[in-house]
Amino acid sequence: MGSRSDWPTMRHAANTLEALGIPFEARVVSAHRTPLRMVEYAHAARGRGLAAIIAGAGGAAHLPGMVAALTPVPVLGVPVESAALKGVDSLHSIVQMPGGVPVATFAIGKAGAINAALFAAAMLAVTDKAIEARLDAWRRAQTDNVPDLPEDLPTE
Amino acid sequence: MGSRSDWPTMRHAANTLEALGIPFEARVVSAHRTPLRMVEYAHAARGRGLAAIIAGAGGAAHLPGMVAALTPVPVLGVPVESAALKGVDSLHSIVQMPGGVPVATFAIGKAGAINAALFAAAMLAVTDKAIEARLDAWRRAQTDNVPDLPEDLPTE
Amino acid sequence: MGSRSDWPTMRHAANTLEALGIPFEARVVSAHRTPLRMVEYAHAARGRGLAAIIAGAGGAAHLPGMVAALTPVPVLGVPVESAALKGVDSLHSIVQMPGGVPVATFAIGKAGAINAALFAAAMLAVTDKAIEARLDAWRRAQTDNVPDLPEDLPTE
Amino acid sequence: MGSRSDWPTMRHAANTLEALGIPFEARVVSAHRTPLRMVEYAHAARGRGLAAIIAGAGGAAHLPGMVAALTPVPVLGVPVESAALKGVDSLHSIVQMPGGVPVATFAIGKAGAINAALFAAAMLAVTDKAIEARLDAWRRAQTDNVPDLPEDLPTE
Amino acid sequence: MGSRSDWPTMRHAANTLEALGIPFEARVVSAHRTPLRMVEYAHAARGRGLAAIIAGAGGAAHLPGMVAALTPVPVLGVPVESAALKGVDSLHSIVQMPGGVPVATFAIGKAGAINAALFAAAMLAVTDKAIEARLDAWRRAQTDNVPDLPEDLPTE
Amino acid sequence: MGSRSDWPTMRHAANTLEALGIPFEARVVSAHRTPLRMVEYAHAARGRGLAAIIAGAGGAAHLPGMVAALTPVPVLGVPVESAALKGVDSLHSIVQMPGGVPVATFAIGKAGAINAALFAAAMLAVTDKAIEARLDAWRRAQTDNVPDLPEDLPTE
Amino acid sequence: MGSRSDWPTMRHAANTLEALGIPFEARVVSAHRTPLRMVEYAHAARGRGLAAIIAGAGGAAHLPGMVAALTPVPVLGVPVESAALKGVDSLHSIVQMPGGVPVATFAIGKAGAINAALFAAAMLAVTDKAIEARLDAWRRAQTDNVPDLPEDLPTE
Amino acid sequence: MGSRSDWPTMRHAANTLEALGIPFEARVVSAHRTPLRMVEYAHAARGRGLAAIIAGAGGAAHLPGMVAALTPVPVLGVPVESAALKGVDSLHSIVQMPGGVPVATFAIGKAGAINAALFAAAMLAVTDKAIEARLDAWRRAQTDNVPDLPEDLPTE
Repeated sequence: MGSRSDWPTMRHAANTLEALGIPFEARVVSAHRTPLRMVEYAHAARGRGLAAIIAGAGGAAHLPGMVAALTPVPVLGVPVESAALKGVDSLHSIVQMPGGVPVATFAIGKAGAINAALFAAAMLAVTDKAIEARLDAWRRAQTDNVPDLPEDLPTE
Repeated sequence: MGSRSDWPTMRHAANTLEALGIPFEARVVSAHRTPLRMVEYAHAARGRGLAAIIAGAGGAAHLPGMVAALTPVPVLGVPVESAALKGVDSLHSIVQMPGGVPVATFAIGKAGAINAALFAAAMLAVTDKAIEARLDAWRRAQTDNVPDLPEDLPTE
Repeated sequence: MGSRSDWPTMRHAANTLEALGIPFEARVVSAHRTPLRMVEYAHAARGRGLAAIIAGAGGAAHLPGMVAALTPVPVLGVPVESAALKGVDSLHSIVQMPGGVPVATFAIGKAGAINAALFAAAMLAVTDKAIEARLDAWRRAQTDNVPDLPEDLPTE
Repeated sequence: MGSRSDWPTMRHAANTLEALGIPFEARVVSAHRTPLRMVEYAHAARGRGLAAIIAGAGGAAHLPGMVAALTPVPVLGVPVESAALKGVDSLHSIVQMPGGVPVATFAIGKAGAINAALFAAAMLAVTDKAIEARLDAWRRAQTDNVPDLPEDLPTE
Repeated sequence: MGSRSDWPTMRHAANTLEALGIPFEARVVSAHRTPLRMVEYAHAARGRGLAAIIAGAGGAAHLPGMVAALTPVPVLGVPVESAALKGVDSLHSIVQMPGGVPVATFAIGKAGAINAALFAAAMLAVTDKAIEARLDAWRRAQTDNVPDLPEDLPTE
Repeated sequence: MGSRSDWPTMRHAANTLEALGIPFEARVVSAHRTPLRMVEYAHAARGRGLAAIIAGAGGAAHLPGMVAALTPVPVLGVPVESAALKGVDSLHSIVQMPGGVPVATFAIGKAGAINAALFAAAMLAVTDKAIEARLDAWRRAQTDNVPDLPEDLPTE
Repeated sequence: MGSRSDWPTMRHAANTLEALGIPFEARVVSAHRTPLRMVEYAHAARGRGLAAIIAGAGGAAHLPGMVAALTPVPVLGVPVESAALKGVDSLHSIVQMPGGVPVATFAIGKAGAINAALFAAAMLAVTDKAIEARLDAWRRAQTDNVPDLPEDLPTE
Repeated sequence: MGSRSDWPTMRHAANTLEALGIPFEARVVSAHRTPLRMVEYAHAARGRGLAAIIAGAGGAAHLPGMVAALTPVPVLGVPVESAALKGVDSLHSIVQMPGGVPVATFAIGKAGAINAALFAAAMLAVTDKAIEARLDAWRRAQTDNVPDLPEDLPTE
């Protein structure tokens, strides 16, 4: 993530990966304040065996796109909600990448963080039966947990 | 894709997959006009061995999200530019998925179609050395082909 | 509705139907988390004699459009206000349906929920004199209850 | 419709009603330029036995909401695409009605006009078996006419 | 104004008119809930000698435009901030009037209410020397009251 | 107006004033390129007996607001459609004036230019019977010229 | 700045300049309420030796553009977050200047105020080695202070 | 600039610099396709004596912000108009930089390119009397060339 202030959003990605038993690391790497750390991190990613990088950032959110420019490892971008523009700027800065350098983008905020983690799991599940099984179980549980009725139907 | 009218956009995904030597099928499946065909297609996807589904749609673009709800195969969404709202509606309908059902979303229009294909390739490249090599070559060529100078510098 | 979290909005539809003496059921059916339950629910709707379906959802709100794709019963969509985009995404996802599969869309949030219920009543009133009478009375009361003056005119 | 200039959009509603064998009248009634004609038209609607009113207008589109304020007959609103704001203003002016006076709103432009007609047919179909049969046939034909493949798959 | 809930905004117009010694009346007239009261009010306006009508409304704000359609008296519109769309819908519904029926539109919310009152005063001031003098004094005081310095410059 | 390029829009204001027999002058005064000419023009306005100033500008459209800051003469603002943002920027720059300095704002583009002229006429009509009569006639003609039927109803 | 109410935002510019040891003055000059004070201030700027003017304003924010029209001294604009439109109006009013009169625009709110100050420092640093050294130190400290890890990694 | 396709916009910056006699170089450096060339270019900038860098880019426009992260040389950003979102995405990606890394942002498209060049000239003019004189002349000519009257006033 681009800043410690993104952690309340991005921890939902971490929690989801944990729930699915997928090892990960959580790091602060700022495209703007630590650009060389970002270059190093991105350049080392494939060699270190990272299968995917989930990058969350807000405002003029350049982290996901720049990491995607610097590594062939798939990059998943999470637009963090910003103060004035509510994440519309984050979304535009992440999703509107030019043809040639893809960033897989997810919803603004918490839902996007959860979904980036689930998507990373789904990518791994294509070739990893254990993750596939855990993800299937997760999805089944999600379906089963949708109640039929609202909590407090008005009574007549 | 949700309609034949999406093909001028989505053919860029097809062309890119072709250029990278990745086998694919191109199908029209409408979430709204052929919902049961969509359910069948999505349900069969994993069994048929599809590694990813690139779904392009415009306006109230429900195809990517509904396919993602119906299969664990990773779904990549491409917002097709719409008439009045220029794809803002397509983008919102695809990227703002609730936590639990991810769609990896790319840019509106042609750039998004190209990038969905490149991202699918990058996913496969994690475990397929041949695709990794072709994708690396593609990226290097892309980098090499960026000219240093604009075509027609004004002369003094 | 697509989630229990939509109930604080959608209960206004329920309350309005109750006030007009129109029988209804309130159900949670998620397009994304319970897609097959949604297909079953929509497929059964006409046979069960439902005269209209009010579907509320937020974000990438696919429930109204997908139900409309699956049943000839008229579908009324209510965009629920979302966290970051304040329901603009919900509105786009519901109202911008392609030609061929209509969803009657109402305002974002509480006003939309009330109006979906009133519209359902108006549909029924075309052929049901009792409902017509109750709806007429409701409208008259609404008109009569508009005060002439603001509550606390500044005094000179 | 509010102006003759809305006819290129609204004729799609007329054509759809015709295709479904539903009798209708097409009238120009401007909320702003002929407000009293609008009041008269709306007041007479129920007595004349109109089952629904499809109102299309653009910009500060007040026609649908004002007709809905003046008659209990269900009003279906179609936002016509406007010059500068591309129908976003039309959509806001039609869909964001206050609780108490519903307008069933459809997509901006041609798709919305078609869908308003289809929705009117669906409303009538609830109590009219002949229209139900024709609408079912229309929907089946629509489903059958979705091709499986894009027109011109690239050949290798 | 269209509803008592607009009064917290519109009272700023009332207060400003009071401060300038301009007689006015404050009335609730809803375009949607009391359309005939609105027609009567607008039709009577010129005969009653009203020099201007300040109309505030929110959401699909039809009151200013409809009153302007029904009377030659100048209409000043104030977009009241709405819940989900923050007054963007109100602004579009008021300012985007078609050529032929003008509504003079002011800013969303409190600033707009104040300015509608000031503008009404300026209209009257063209032919009323007493109001002109009071308005000039008001403007001079406003200019004089702008401080040179921020309240609490950081001191070192 | 702020630039000669605004004339294709603003000539509609001129034409409307002409049609109503209201004398006017058309001048190019740029807030940004000729700020002192603007200050002089605005300062002289009341002394020269101008009853209203119609100011059209596009983009960061500062002309209407600055003229309003410099003269007590009522200022009517017309947002001219801009290249990239289609006049949304012009509208924001004109209508969102702070409390204290009003600009009466009209629709983006041609409709706004016509309506600014009509509104100026309506302001004058309050105290000028001849203009009132011509404006009444203009409005009646407008109402009479709304056709009942669209030009080319489809025939059955 | 245009108003004392802008100070909570603009003090971040002042604090940043202070931290970099760059002398400055903080003044309230309203384009709309004190237009002549603004003209005088801008006209005097070059003669007084000001190297840059940071102008913050909200809503229809005309101060930066008007000052830029009145002085050759570089003007840096900060869009202050507004009530209803969250600074989108401020941003449009400041950044969308016509070709010929530039305003260097920064982010909405606090970040923009900080960055305007940093940019002013960077401008001075081009020819002032002491400021260059302090700015370099500031940037290094910023880079060094980015933590590697989020504050509270979930523990397993 | 980020791509040769930005040249039709960015050449206006080049032309303006030429007209003011300011030496410059025009280079294509893509943040996404040639990230290392960008790092090198930015790192070398101060040593090569560049006084400012004008960076134009469209869509998810990361070039200006990333260059600003990599060099203390002042960076001026020009949002190039993009296909679907008309440069709103470019604007958000450039202007909404986090506090700490400033990019001076100008209008979308041609006006922004001209103004970035003028602003660069104004920066240099603070310490370069020759440029100051040429810029003053340019501004005077601009003021003098604003005509008083529209080209073709309607004749009465």
